[in-house]
Amino acid sequence: MSDKVNAPFLRNAWYQAGWSRELHAGLLARTIMNEPLLFFRDAGGTIGCVEDRCCHRGAPLSHGKVVENGLQCGYHGLVFDVNGTCVEIPGQDNIPPMAKVKSHPVVERQGFIWVWMGEAALADESKIVDWRPHENSPYRTALMPLKINYMMMVDNLMDLSHLGYVHINSIGSNDPKAHVNAKMETTRTETGVRFTRLMPNLAPTPTYVKGIGRTGNVDRWQDFEYVVPSSVKQWTGAHEVGHAIESPRHAEFQIWIYHGITPESENSSFYFWSSAHNYRQDEPAVTDELFSELAKVFDEDAVIMEAQQQRLDADPNRPLLPIKADNALMQARRAFQKALDEERASMPQAAE
Amino acid sequence: MSDKVNAPFLRNAWYQAGWSRELHAGLLARTIMNEPLLFFRDAGGTIGCVEDRCCHRGAPLSHGKVVENGLQCGYHGLVFDVNGTCVEIPGQDNIPPMAKVKSHPVVERQGFIWVWMGEAALADESKIVDWRPHENSPYRTALMPLKINYMMMVDNLMDLSHLGYVHINSIGSNDPKAHVNAKMETTRTETGVRFTRLMPNLAPTPTYVKGIGRTGNVDRWQDFEYVVPSSVKQWTGAHEVGHAIESPRHAEFQIWIYHGITPESENSSFYFWSSAHNYRQDEPAVTDELFSELAKVFDEDAVIMEAQQQRLDADPNRPLLPIKADNALMQARRAFQKALDEERASMPQAAE
Amino acid sequence: MSDKVNAPFLRNAWYQAGWSRELHAGLLARTIMNEPLLFFRDAGGTIGCVEDRCCHRGAPLSHGKVVENGLQCGYHGLVFDVNGTCVEIPGQDNIPPMAKVKSHPVVERQGFIWVWMGEAALADESKIVDWRPHENSPYRTALMPLKINYMMMVDNLMDLSHLGYVHINSIGSNDPKAHVNAKMETTRTETGVRFTRLMPNLAPTPTYVKGIGRTGNVDRWQDFEYVVPSSVKQWTGAHEVGHAIESPRHAEFQIWIYHGITPESENSSFYFWSSAHNYRQDEPAVTDELFSELAKVFDEDAVIMEAQQQRLDADPNRPLLPIKADNALMQARRAFQKALDEERASMPQAAE
Repeated sequence: MSDKVNAPFLRNAWYQAGWSRELHAGLLARTIMNEPLLFFRDAGGTIGCVEDRCCHRGAPLSHGKVVENGLQCGYHGLVFDVNGTCVEIPGQDNIPPMAKVKSHPVVERQGFIWVWMGEAALADESKIVDWRPHENSPYRTALMPLKINYMMMVDNLMDLSHLGYVHINSIGSNDPKAHVNAKMETTRTETGVRFTRLMPNLAPTPTYVKGIGRTGNVDRWQDFEYVVPSSVKQWTGAHEVGHAIESPRHAEFQIWIYHGITPESENSSFYFWSSAHNYRQDEPAVTDELFSELAKVFDEDAVIMEAQQQRLDADPNRPLLPIKADNALMQARRAFQKALDEERASMPQAAE
Repeated sequence: MSDKVNAPFLRNAWYQAGWSRELHAGLLARTIMNEPLLFFRDAGGTIGCVEDRCCHRGAPLSHGKVVENGLQCGYHGLVFDVNGTCVEIPGQDNIPPMAKVKSHPVVERQGFIWVWMGEAALADESKIVDWRPHENSPYRTALMPLKINYMMMVDNLMDLSHLGYVHINSIGSNDPKAHVNAKMETTRTETGVRFTRLMPNLAPTPTYVKGIGRTGNVDRWQDFEYVVPSSVKQWTGAHEVGHAIESPRHAEFQIWIYHGITPESENSSFYFWSSAHNYRQDEPAVTDELFSELAKVFDEDAVIMEAQQQRLDADPNRPLLPIKADNALMQARRAFQKALDEERASMPQAAE
Repeated sequence: MSDKVNAPFLRNAWYQAGWSRELHAGLLARTIMNEPLLFFRDAGGTIGCVEDRCCHRGAPLSHGKVVENGLQCGYHGLVFDVNGTCVEIPGQDNIPPMAKVKSHPVVERQGFIWVWMGEAALADESKIVDWRPHENSPYRTALMPLKINYMMMVDNLMDLSHLGYVHINSIGSNDPKAHVNAKMETTRTETGVRFTRLMPNLAPTPTYVKGIGRTGNVDRWQDFEYVVPSSVKQWTGAHEVGHAIESPRHAEFQIWIYHGITPESENSSFYFWSSAHNYRQDEPAVTDELFSELAKVFDEDAVIMEAQQQRLDADPNRPLLPIKADNALMQARRAFQKALDEERASMPQAAE
């Protein structure tokens, strides 16, 4: 079932492994799908992703360092290139062919580091999610390690009725029902699901008031696009009432949020998000303040979701009760399940 | 065997879920017999006990709050009444019959909150333990979460020979043998086991001296009544020697302690206790001081019992060596086992 | 296979249980091979090793104390002698024959406490490792609890090529290759494996310079003797170049280190080590400083080895890649495996 608790891993897909800024120190160790990985930039600037385990005695390569000819193990000094091939064994001249560590395709783009966890031959860079605000606008990035299955975060983002309860003290309207009763339009896309919500004639959020200095009622939109397996692009907008703006893309006040969720294990994930905006882009303090406010909001999600995950893990096969508000969530789960079914059909020997 | 380590759960019985004072904030989340429960007082003052897991997406209801029509989930706003029936689903008009969460019978009485973990139809309120000191006297209440099986605490309380070793620096007599050689009388009751111990002509305990201001030798009594499954009522008394007092119920110095042990899991429990006294009842500082002294004593029990539990868990089937001092303990275990056997006989399909 | 990750326990062997100084307080609780043990010195000065679990109700005897006639349990007062035989049960006169706790042969010698974990009849004290520096020289002792299988530490000590990588900032030469290319000579002994390494004409280590106040280049030696199952004796020496010294035993600067590794569980161990020296033996500050410097070095080993163990535990059956530098390590593993095979052949019924 597509709405099963603890979704299995979809392997043939790009996942965000980190932010470019995390690699500036040279090494980034991160476990994805239970596999300890090491991302590194070699002396020539090329990025590699190898298993974080030396083939000699099993020591984590993340305890080593980048040297002239590659990544040097910090225990006995073996050196590997970005493809995981051993290029040096101290004390011996020949390097046997089995002297190598596993590697994965990795791409750095728009501030993201992407990794392909499945069959390397299928890694198509054109399928990497595109997020233009990282090219055109100032933005800030976050990483929250959460004790949840990765698809639970997609569920959370695809059912915004929670805003009126989880975020009642932050971005939620004073009237929870405004969120529940928002005008929703949900459509399937080639790569996932998209929905828009219109909430007309509401008091503005504090972020709006601080951001553009006006206090009158606004029309509010949310435009969310889920891309399989675990990216969600968010466009939020608000505009003074009475201007008949049709989409958040034309609103005077716009916030652009990218959400990426990468499975560390079945019930732990890395939640990456970034925030950008269309107003006062030349003021770093404004960019910082928006980021800080959103961080508080996403902390609220973290608390309820980790608590939820504990309950689900206690009895993972127990059914949940679908309600009307779950519509977009269910469509997202179906899109995910379709991709999962296709992957399994193509790998008959590896039924999970 | 009745003296088996890690006694199984007796379900058809009343267990103390908490103290009334714990519910004053409105919600009390507590796991009993591995089941996460939420106790709450609704807007009309009625107490409910529901499973702490929303039927919609599994979020703990303890992250919600009490609203006008019941308990509101803090994730997407579903509302439940004290019986666990869903009375509101935001965004939809009809409420399907499966929209409900599990509930348990719950009773508030004499400062205790009691819960019935078994078959609801068998929940007979007349079987709830009665503890009069909570009606007539000032008292203080404690909750100690302990990493022990619940019956290990009953064992501890039913073999007071440990006083001379565990409590040698607090309430134990300077002579451990005084405790071992106390005159014991043990009798079966309809609901469990009762024993009395007489220790004549001993130096008084510091509590006695502080309590009633005399320092001469005393006769000391302990009267313990075990009520299946895990309540122990304690009457302790001391009286100046030479007065031929026959029972602690008539002693000049009396302490009344209630012990309740509720299983959180097979090897963790909630130890509830309260203390009251017959002397200087109008001085809150005296009530506080007695409570503080007992808390230190029960902390001593906690240390040795949690250490004991670790050893027992390492090899739960290894036999223990019964000694003469275990007599009352063994009778208590037999009374418990009898109740357990009866429960199992009545539920043939659920052999544990 | 002898180089298998997580070596099983060799039982018929002496293991270091602790340092004599640890017993000065009377009791020493330590888990060895998953068995919780209690070492104690009775009122007459005899050392005993008993299971740390009372036969009465399972409480750890380490919560008790030494009394006139033995070790008294801290729960209900039973008393045991150094052989684990119960000599007193409070409240009863007869002591049944099953009133005893398991015991192990134990020997105190040269500052070590040794325990025999196998068949008691085979415990031959003449097989205990002899370490003379503890008799003739000032020394300091350490205990590091490590999350590693005990044989991983033997592996570490038997492949010193790691000095140039793990200890590059402490005792490693500035040129890692000096360690990799040291002149090695490895020989089998009756009880294990011994190797010597000569590194001629190197800059002296800071320890040497501080120790004997000279700064010119030196010849450096390391002489390591592995004794099955898990002792390693180390003689390190340095001498001004140009003196044709043939062995560290005659060098002007000598350091003597004992390494003992005792399995707590399959993947946790107690690493005991001591340090002594041949220079300025009458200056305690010199003995202290050497010890402090070595402690920093061994902390570096601890970090990489515990990280390595985590990787190995994640997939214990995955093969490792032997390299030329592993030669002495492999011989040590073979000597260990031979002893293990012999033990198993002698106990056909207990195939692990």
